[in-house]
Amino acid sequence: MQISTYRLPQDVPVHFCRNKTAVIIDVLRATTTIVTALRNGARSVIPVSEVEEAVELSRNFPAGERVLAGERMAVQIDGFDLSNSPLEFTEERVGDKAVFLTTTNGTRAIQMTQAAEVLIGALINATATGQYLAGQERDVVIICAGTLGHFSMEDTVAAGAIIHAIKDIDPSAQTDDFSLASLLLYRHCGTEKEMHALLEQTQHYRRLKELGLIGDLDHCLKQDSMPLLAAYEDGSVSLIRE
Amino acid sequence: MQISTYRLPQDVPVHFCRNKTAVIIDVLRATTTIVTALRNGARSVIPVSEVEEAVELSRNFPAGERVLAGERMAVQIDGFDLSNSPLEFTEERVGDKAVFLTTTNGTRAIQMTQAAEVLIGALINATATGQYLAGQERDVVIICAGTLGHFSMEDTVAAGAIIHAIKDIDPSAQTDDFSLASLLLYRHCGTEKEMHALLEQTQHYRRLKELGLIGDLDHCLKQDSMPLLAAYEDGSVSLIRE
Repeated sequence: MQISTYRLPQDVPVHFCRNKTAVIIDVLRATTTIVTALRNGARSVIPVSEVEEAVELSRNFPAGERVLAGERMAVQIDGFDLSNSPLEFTEERVGDKAVFLTTTNGTRAIQMTQAAEVLIGALINATATGQYLAGQERDVVIICAGTLGHFSMEDTVAAGAIIHAIKDIDPSAQTDDFSLASLLLYRHCGTEKEMHALLEQTQHYRRLKELGLIGDLDHCLKQDSMPLLAAYEDGSVSLIRE
Repeated sequence: MQISTYRLPQDVPVHFCRNKTAVIIDVLRATTTIVTALRNGARSVIPVSEVEEAVELSRNFPAGERVLAGERMAVQIDGFDLSNSPLEFTEERVGDKAVFLTTTNGTRAIQMTQAAEVLIGALINATATGQYLAGQERDVVIICAGTLGHFSMEDTVAAGAIIHAIKDIDPSAQTDDFSLASLLLYRHCGTEKEMHALLEQTQHYRRLKELGLIGDLDHCLKQDSMPLLAAYEDGSVSLIRE
């Protein structure tokens, strides 16, 4: 098995994902939020690029069965039910509902990916995702969403956590240079506390902390706290294993 | 001081380098070769993108005072005096001569950079380069040449070595996420032996090893073996301090 990891969706060569399994990672916060919503009973999460598209698509569902959620520059969108804070996606708010989610980076990356299978990865489900990948045949492409078009440390460390789990089961899995770098950055952390200490120095963490979102940060960085598998197919994300 | 590091020249935003000091890194092998040539007495090294341009420009120098050097896909160019192997740039071959060098990645990156000052960085002069940067006022942009448009571990580790030297003198220097990742990857290595062990797993190392270039690899990875400063100005690279 060959594992390739990319810093940003736009770095992935055209058609590279064909016949491979892709994992999209946006730890702060889109993919963490999607996994959290599914854990709390959302029927499905529909990632949408544009605000208008989210509103339009949601109209196909009765008022009581839909939730509009999203952010622009980490702030809730006017008229939407929820922001992109995973802590808002409680059972009461999303249970048995279709969640339409639009975010600056993560949801676009999910929509763009053309792979045989597309998984939703985060730190909260990293090991479960890696274990699943190790048990399947296809090559793996891990795509970090990044932050505003730049390398993001938290996505890269989460990629490293997934690769660590794959290589735990399949030590022969081959890594490209960026996968190897991700793995080393993850292993550098060692403990949850050390990972937190590293990520506190990063740009996105500091910005969300300034916005008072420390609860979100704690949730997003809790590795393997929601060990479930989420896959994107035909426009929506749902659980493939609890 | 703010330090920004980029995976590839094309990742650097337009005009980002203006008023900053840029460092171009292509450990395997363009920037290592340039530093080596200068150490061995080359009067200057002229980085050139195209083969024809190298031939054309070199005609301005008498036959005994010019050297044509370069590679395409790690192989010497037909009719050139030298390849891109730093071991060929001995005092006998390059002493007191103008060296016209064209390579796949590195020389292009050098030519493209629009910064207040452009330095040539490699592992062999990493600490000297970092110490110089710490002593000047401007923000720093470290630009890895990468390998064929992809992230390269050896360039990133060399960036980390330079950042390590800067922060040794100026601990208050600020790092973006990719600079922080580079620093951690460098520090992960600890010893020269560990760095070698890491880089042996990388894509470019393995390709050059298959080509029988193990001597080159040893030379390129010998940190601080040629602690001099090289700067690019008006189309050519020369020493600014021995």
